[in-house]
Amino acid sequence: MRLTRLDVLDLRAPTSRTLAGSDAVHGDPDYSAAYVILESDAGLAGHGLTFTIGRGTEVVCAAVRALAPQLLGRELEEITFDFGAFHRRLTNESQLRWLGPEKGVIHLATAALVNALWDLWAKRESKPVWKLVADLAPEQIVRLVDWRYLTDALTPDEALDRLRARAPGRAAREAELREGGYPAYVTSAGWLGYPEPKVRRLCQEALAEGWTRFKTKVGIDVASDQRRCQVMREEIGERCELMADANQVWDVPQAITWTRELAAFRLRWIEEPTSPDDVLGHAAIRRAVAPVGVATGEHCANKVLFKQLFQAGAIDYCQVDACRLGGLNEVLAVLLLADKFGVPVCPHAGGLGLCEYVQHISLLDYIVVSGSLEGRFTEYAAHLHEHFVDPIRVRGGRYLVPEAPGYSAEMRPESRAALEFPGGLEWRRG
Amino acid sequence: MRLTRLDVLDLRAPTSRTLAGSDAVHGDPDYSAAYVILESDAGLAGHGLTFTIGRGTEVVCAAVRALAPQLLGRELEEITFDFGAFHRRLTNESQLRWLGPEKGVIHLATAALVNALWDLWAKRESKPVWKLVADLAPEQIVRLVDWRYLTDALTPDEALDRLRARAPGRAAREAELREGGYPAYVTSAGWLGYPEPKVRRLCQEALAEGWTRFKTKVGIDVASDQRRCQVMREEIGERCELMADANQVWDVPQAITWTRELAAFRLRWIEEPTSPDDVLGHAAIRRAVAPVGVATGEHCANKVLFKQLFQAGAIDYCQVDACRLGGLNEVLAVLLLADKFGVPVCPHAGGLGLCEYVQHISLLDYIVVSGSLEGRFTEYAAHLHEHFVDPIRVRGGRYLVPEAPGYSAEMRPESRAALEFPGGLEWRRG
Repeated sequence: MRLTRLDVLDLRAPTSRTLAGSDAVHGDPDYSAAYVILESDAGLAGHGLTFTIGRGTEVVCAAVRALAPQLLGRELEEITFDFGAFHRRLTNESQLRWLGPEKGVIHLATAALVNALWDLWAKRESKPVWKLVADLAPEQIVRLVDWRYLTDALTPDEALDRLRARAPGRAAREAELREGGYPAYVTSAGWLGYPEPKVRRLCQEALAEGWTRFKTKVGIDVASDQRRCQVMREEIGERCELMADANQVWDVPQAITWTRELAAFRLRWIEEPTSPDDVLGHAAIRRAVAPVGVATGEHCANKVLFKQLFQAGAIDYCQVDACRLGGLNEVLAVLLLADKFGVPVCPHAGGLGLCEYVQHISLLDYIVVSGSLEGRFTEYAAHLHEHFVDPIRVRGGRYLVPEAPGYSAEMRPESRAALEFPGGLEWRRG
Repeated sequence: MRLTRLDVLDLRAPTSRTLAGSDAVHGDPDYSAAYVILESDAGLAGHGLTFTIGRGTEVVCAAVRALAPQLLGRELEEITFDFGAFHRRLTNESQLRWLGPEKGVIHLATAALVNALWDLWAKRESKPVWKLVADLAPEQIVRLVDWRYLTDALTPDEALDRLRARAPGRAAREAELREGGYPAYVTSAGWLGYPEPKVRRLCQEALAEGWTRFKTKVGIDVASDQRRCQVMREEIGERCELMADANQVWDVPQAITWTRELAAFRLRWIEEPTSPDDVLGHAAIRRAVAPVGVATGEHCANKVLFKQLFQAGAIDYCQVDACRLGGLNEVLAVLLLADKFGVPVCPHAGGLGLCEYVQHISLLDYIVVSGSLEGRFTEYAAHLHEHFVDPIRVRGGRYLVPEAPGYSAEMRPESRAALEFPGGLEWRRG
């Protein structure tokens, strides 16, 4: 199956009008995507997107176009046969590499392309992506990863041994998830821009739907953060889990004192307490704020940063993102590292299409890699699922297993037309 | 003085035709720039560029355009009066921040814009940039920096104390540099793609010009790297300094064994032995390869990474880059951190316009920040200086002090026309 054509769309939802998604550093996000359609000579198309928050999506689209010549004209099988080697070539193109390497715009663009390849591969196999990977042998899974820069923490041979040790239980874990779904937590009640009555109402609605784990945004000032946590605790009670997300707003010493001010609310974790690049800072914060855990990952630039977060004992929860890393291949590397270091993976989601992606990641973590649900739950936010051909399904605070072929991020044609920036209907009626 | 207009050019030199600049991961660089011209209502224009290596320059240009609205229409004085606060706003624009934050394409674009602001400010003051800063009071210098994420390593108050302590010697150090220039080393003899006779000839020519410090590229295989070091040592003798640059090609364990294989050639440093994001990896390598030093920085994404390299004791030499960081303001933050941790700064240069920039950085390091030349020398490469209005001048292996107003990266109009991609003469005759 040859890759014959690549289109990239700049899609933006005007979410800033309602302050959905607002937090301490992103006051007015328009949930957006650089959206890739990768056509093949077999009539099938792979769809992949990378999540962005409005302005600058056109820059990611430009990066997609810069990377596209490395895919076009190739056979899909040639890529997937040695996907780790292809991934290294893609991220190490001799001139484009300077723009990263493997971080920021060029890596967000890589994610859209690589995830489109996964979508196409899974559609050709008539399987959802999680099932495609869950049916691969350990030897094949190891070859999906570019191991460069990882071998001081985990070698391919050791990863292979670990995957083999987990292989016998795959079928039972798959059956268990099909039966009961994968545990999740809800973020959409606690956006920073929401007034208190709205937060209370959303908490009540979520409780009625069966949610037991909640997250709120913090980072404005201590008093109002305490108030937000208080309001959440009043609504959800003492038996539900509460997490708080600071979205990188603090310096290291400030993160420590501030988190301690919130400790009375029994936070399971403080998320993104400081710069996402600060491995040593996260380690210092973690040592100081226990028993509150430290979580980060949605802005973690690549596998080398995650490797160090694990090596330094810097985090209690690994919030891998489906688009910040260079696609599923690199996500798998991080799952393998997290398992080695005993850190539970709780993927970052929300946004536009991230929930659709990460359900596959969490299923794979349980079925193939870690074999554990301990301390693991996937993020859920309520918005924008109506735009997807095969949207997530949640019930009783759990993700149900997706069954349609592909990586679940294909958007409906009428949604793509409406959200296209700046010409789509959503923007023309602005 | 109001900022009235911003143009951005995609300029590329076809250096891949000669393999100038070739190394272990960049086999065919076309030295390029996203080039910014920032016009004011006073008739003066600030010129700023960010260095790239060919394909993808158009992506950086797109990022410049995305950031431009934050400058246009503003008063220059409003920006420079509290430049640190402006820098934070620029790098934390509420939607564009998602594309980094402060790394990769969006940060390269930030550098071009911020350095254009510096060029304009210096031209208005009729001073070279280094002199503009050297004439500022310590209080003013501290306000150039966005201190977010740095205060666990260095607070503004401590930086102020350190700057004040160095202030009395500024005039004497400035006079010393005007007299004797700033020490440098030469890279252009040792590009990986150059055949041995050419390397020998270039070493001989450099020795004749007074150079005493040389760098070679390594990272292909141990035997050929040993041969390259051998050839360099034969030409330059035992009394000159030799450094080697691996350009990120190794894993951590590999970097250790490989560097030890080269130890017989008495390398002053091994440069970029592994991923530029791997703080802990550099620390492990440094512990293992002493007395060979570890150097890195040209791909160090931002001040938070440098902070950690210092905190972890990971490097012996700080190779700050004028464009990888978000302009001179962030470079100054790194100079202050390096001084605090006692790590000498040896800026990365070469490329297109980097030598022109970093001469200012090294002068500032000595005059204003560190007050020391110990273990410090600036990189020099011979190419492409003919394109600049006020090119660097070197004599006897030292940079002479630039005296023209501005930041020295303004390119000649005829060079801009010839290098413009894809329409310029250099590409049409390609």
